[in-house]
Amino acid sequence: MSEQENTLSIVALGGVNEIGKNMYVIQYDDDILVVDCGSKFPDESLLGIDVIVPDITFLLENQDKIRALIVTHGHEDHIGGIPYIFKQLNMPIYATRLTLGLIQGKLKEHGLLARAQLNQIHSNSKVTFGTIKVSFFSTNHSIPDCLGIALHTPEGTVVHTGDFKFDLTPVNEQYPDIHKMAELGKNGVLALLSESTNAERPGFTPSERLVGEHIQEAFDNATQKIFISTFASNVHRLQQIIDAAERTNRKVALVGRSMVNVVGIATELGYLRMPDDMLIEPPEVNKYEPHAVVVLCTGSQGEPMAALSRLASSNHRQIEVLRGDTVILAATPIPGNERNVARIVDNLFELGAKVIYGSGIVTGMHVSGHASQEELKLMLTLMKPKYFIPIHGEYRMLYQHRLLAEAVGVKSENIFILKNGDVVDINSQIARQRRKVPTGITLVDGLGIGDVGNVVLRDRKHMSEDGILIIVITINRSENKIISGPDTISRGFVYVRESEGLLEEVNRITVNSLLKLLEDNVNQWSVYKQAIKEAVGKFLYAQTKRRPMILPIIIQI
Amino acid sequence: MSEQENTLSIVALGGVNEIGKNMYVIQYDDDILVVDCGSKFPDESLLGIDVIVPDITFLLENQDKIRALIVTHGHEDHIGGIPYIFKQLNMPIYATRLTLGLIQGKLKEHGLLARAQLNQIHSNSKVTFGTIKVSFFSTNHSIPDCLGIALHTPEGTVVHTGDFKFDLTPVNEQYPDIHKMAELGKNGVLALLSESTNAERPGFTPSERLVGEHIQEAFDNATQKIFISTFASNVHRLQQIIDAAERTNRKVALVGRSMVNVVGIATELGYLRMPDDMLIEPPEVNKYEPHAVVVLCTGSQGEPMAALSRLASSNHRQIEVLRGDTVILAATPIPGNERNVARIVDNLFELGAKVIYGSGIVTGMHVSGHASQEELKLMLTLMKPKYFIPIHGEYRMLYQHRLLAEAVGVKSENIFILKNGDVVDINSQIARQRRKVPTGITLVDGLGIGDVGNVVLRDRKHMSEDGILIIVITINRSENKIISGPDTISRGFVYVRESEGLLEEVNRITVNSLLKLLEDNVNQWSVYKQAIKEAVGKFLYAQTKRRPMILPIIIQI
Repeated sequence: MSEQENTLSIVALGGVNEIGKNMYVIQYDDDILVVDCGSKFPDESLLGIDVIVPDITFLLENQDKIRALIVTHGHEDHIGGIPYIFKQLNMPIYATRLTLGLIQGKLKEHGLLARAQLNQIHSNSKVTFGTIKVSFFSTNHSIPDCLGIALHTPEGTVVHTGDFKFDLTPVNEQYPDIHKMAELGKNGVLALLSESTNAERPGFTPSERLVGEHIQEAFDNATQKIFISTFASNVHRLQQIIDAAERTNRKVALVGRSMVNVVGIATELGYLRMPDDMLIEPPEVNKYEPHAVVVLCTGSQGEPMAALSRLASSNHRQIEVLRGDTVILAATPIPGNERNVARIVDNLFELGAKVIYGSGIVTGMHVSGHASQEELKLMLTLMKPKYFIPIHGEYRMLYQHRLLAEAVGVKSENIFILKNGDVVDINSQIARQRRKVPTGITLVDGLGIGDVGNVVLRDRKHMSEDGILIIVITINRSENKIISGPDTISRGFVYVRESEGLLEEVNRITVNSLLKLLEDNVNQWSVYKQAIKEAVGKFLYAQTKRRPMILPIIIQI
Repeated sequence: MSEQENTLSIVALGGVNEIGKNMYVIQYDDDILVVDCGSKFPDESLLGIDVIVPDITFLLENQDKIRALIVTHGHEDHIGGIPYIFKQLNMPIYATRLTLGLIQGKLKEHGLLARAQLNQIHSNSKVTFGTIKVSFFSTNHSIPDCLGIALHTPEGTVVHTGDFKFDLTPVNEQYPDIHKMAELGKNGVLALLSESTNAERPGFTPSERLVGEHIQEAFDNATQKIFISTFASNVHRLQQIIDAAERTNRKVALVGRSMVNVVGIATELGYLRMPDDMLIEPPEVNKYEPHAVVVLCTGSQGEPMAALSRLASSNHRQIEVLRGDTVILAATPIPGNERNVARIVDNLFELGAKVIYGSGIVTGMHVSGHASQEELKLMLTLMKPKYFIPIHGEYRMLYQHRLLAEAVGVKSENIFILKNGDVVDINSQIARQRRKVPTGITLVDGLGIGDVGNVVLRDRKHMSEDGILIIVITINRSENKIISGPDTISRGFVYVRESEGLLEEVNRITVNSLLKLLEDNVNQWSVYKQAIKEAVGKFLYAQTKRRPMILPIIIQI
């Protein structure tokens, strides 16, 4: 990959110009280290796609040089790609204890655990991979056990922040190690890769403890059952919920697969502490007085199949939300999820619940896990990098992060806003961006990886809007005569029952188009099909202003 | 409809438990008045549907009693249903000048103008419809010429607020007529129907003038071209943009069909004032110095086909956004539109534009047109209604509006939160809610109304997620023998090229299923089809974890 020897190269394979599927590559000579292996949820244009992972063509071409995958923390956009990508490329994994625990769960689910090479590290670990020495520093984020990474190469030190905020009064003592960051900066950082999620937000992100205070207040005021929904992976918030439950003498029931899963792993590994007899099973909820129970559940983003949605529509088999119960949505809806969340809030109000909902800024029930502008400036100031590459954000976030870097003194020409696939090469302390490696997105639909492409998606979109009309007709090859049909089958276009006249006309048009061609002795299927498509399509658009996919099937006997 | 004589009935046919398609009915004895006739955009679950309008079964059943459709103002959720519903039910329309102008445009487009009965009213009009005397009062909202309606019946007065805010320093002198509202309250309001859009928002909505100040500031600071995008119907804001353009000596080009349309109507009717030589055509933009031009365009909600989106992706034929141009999004994204808006902002930053975007609270470039909590309390206080029906909002908004009404002294038992179709009957000053009229939604897809139902939508959804696999096979009826096929056609499922093995196996399974049945002398198509569907479906799910729609087509010769 290197243009010439002794070059340090930094590549974004995923995570820039998007939120999700983070994957960065740092290479020095023949040593490649990969940082993170995330996934991303598809937007509404990718119909039927389950998940998106980075395109790893470049890594597959350089398999022999890959020394390790280092994972900064256990969120989906940093670990979610692992089970899919490891089917093609088995890299040794380095991560902290909780992160590894979450990765193991995924690998197990996909039957890949036995082959995995898992290496547990902590913030004081030092690992050497060929020419690159790697050290770490603790950061604070909305999941425990997060790392920033310092990659010391012969060319200089590259720092990757991972996701972070500067929570100076953190829950569970997850302090950001500012002293280590300062030391790195003092010793010289050649290039900084820093996350940009909240680069548009002025100020300093509030401490997670603020949420704890509001949770406690709500628990103190509640007279009946409490339902509280938040991100399962936010172990700090789970801890504060459990603490509030303990102080108000309430038992806790967990509802939702990922909540049960994360609480299990985090408790087992010691990241979540609770009294031995605190957890109860969902069916036990009704055995306790309403004021003695908390239901901790998934679905704070309005996911239609998750626990909170089922509870709000009275579709949970074991637990009911009753008049006077308190329901807390301890999360701000992510853009795109507002409507689903609003529907749940409507339903909860209809059930007579007291609902605490809306933006975390208003309710105090959510703070971001990402650094705002003042914290991003603090990181830049601590690291004093020569070169700066904003990562982990959509274009406007990277752009705002660039402005922040300029404001604290990074030279404008030393800042690189990358697209996925772009490479920054640093040689003799001079950085240049002028190459790309193969890149793209890999779509996962069901078990398949990469076999759903643009044509398939275009067809799905077409059919989702106007449906499909199939026209079947059988002709006798030797006599050039229609011997059966045309028969029309409508799916997602119109009700056949209510559209008999329309479909009869379609049949008439089909026969006319075909007879004309048969008379002219045209003998190509493709011509038959095209003629039918055009004639029927024109007629249907004039009649209905819709353009269903028209699929003539001509059988020659 | 009345349960007994001399009953006043209030019905919501659309607009409660939703934002959109407002339609309310007030009936006294044999006199029915309809207030508003709106439309609503479909949510993402209604694949391919263009627009939704209220179900008017109840009105069709009582056609002989309908005296008028009174329209409060010209927004889509109040007039958008007219062209669709008037094909079935032609009601005399009463509305103010601008509202009528906008309605005429719609009727003309649908070829319905000649048959329409249009009556122009103003805020001091008084009209008698049988037993109901109707008067009006001016309100302020994000479009000029808005009305509140007072319906004086022998049972008492019903007030419908329309959409409103209390902008006490309005643009274009659109003052809310507080004195008339106070007088109505003093004379006694039996029932108030008041809009609830912002019932969740504390405080008092800022004046539209605030936006004018920020627009002027941005215009003063801009050194090159200015692009500004807002809702075309917000004539107040258009006026402030034109005023700022005039003060900074800039010509104005309009881009986007609805912008050209509304500016045309509003200028012609005198609601928008501008210097004679101010407007230029889009192709002329490049003839002027950058600092002498403003482009006023549609697409502030990120609509992919609208002007701003095309400009941001450099897809406009005549005008280009260049480095250093200023782009102002003078609108807060409506929930659900954030991603589309963000994509446009990203593109604009990539073009090097200075972009003013984000929530109106932060940028000052947008204020709501709807009353916040203090204003809703002011309306309730002015009207002092005996009965209160919060309208125009989703359930949680109606619920919060109920709390506000209780707070200013309306008795809890006198407040009715309705669902569409619910009726409140008032007889001898006693109100009861215990009846429903037929209700529902009517889907418009292309030219068709109501012919797209659940089955069609379910099919569209199915095909949008996993596509369709069509299996065609021809059998000889007399010999019970397969004579052609099976042939498989995949659309939106898998690439045929990459899935030959899979599809060959499908063919094999199809033949086996069919031969078995033929051997057993089973002779029912439906059994053949079911057997193929099950066997192929099971196989495909095991292989791909996808469930395409499977459509066996068996032709018997």
